[in-house]
Amino acid sequence: MARVVVDVMPKPEILDPQGKAVLGALPRLGFTAVSEVRQGKRFELEVAEVNDDVLAEVERLADTFLANTVIENYTVRVEQ
Amino acid sequence: MARVVVDVMPKPEILDPQGKAVLGALPRLGFTAVSEVRQGKRFELEVAEVNDDVLAEVERLADTFLANTVIENYTVRVEQ
Repeated sequence: MARVVVDVMPKPEILDPQGKAVLGALPRLGFTAVSEVRQGKRFELEVAEVNDDVLAEVERLADTFLANTVIENYTVRVEQ
Repeated sequence: MARVVVDVMPKPEILDPQGKAVLGALPRLGFTAVSEVRQGKRFELEVAEVNDDVLAEVERLADTFLANTVIENYTVRVEQ
């Protein structure tokens, strides 16, 4: 078994209300070091083995289903 | 500016209905390589610089606010 991770984040030019909500709460909670927060999704996919076919399928899966590519970017990577 | 990433995932023994929903949809969509899906959250935090104080604050932030440690695990890492 191997694990492939797909990270899905809102594009930089897209408003991220979840990230803004987290950022707005930080000063009230006493946290001062963080100046910007973006919140996205992380998918951990288990596959039997990693090869070109599997990675192509996961890429297609991320592009068509896990991410909304109008407003989100994604990255696919194999986790060691 | 530097970026610190906090990944928050449901603990292995906790039911993950979002991941299950994604997994259940895959065969219908023609994807066959993936046998398990877990869905979590990814936070990208911008900080002025990375040092021990900042990392300690982010660790505390993740532990008390970004993750619910009863049901979720988190990892903090500096992104290059």
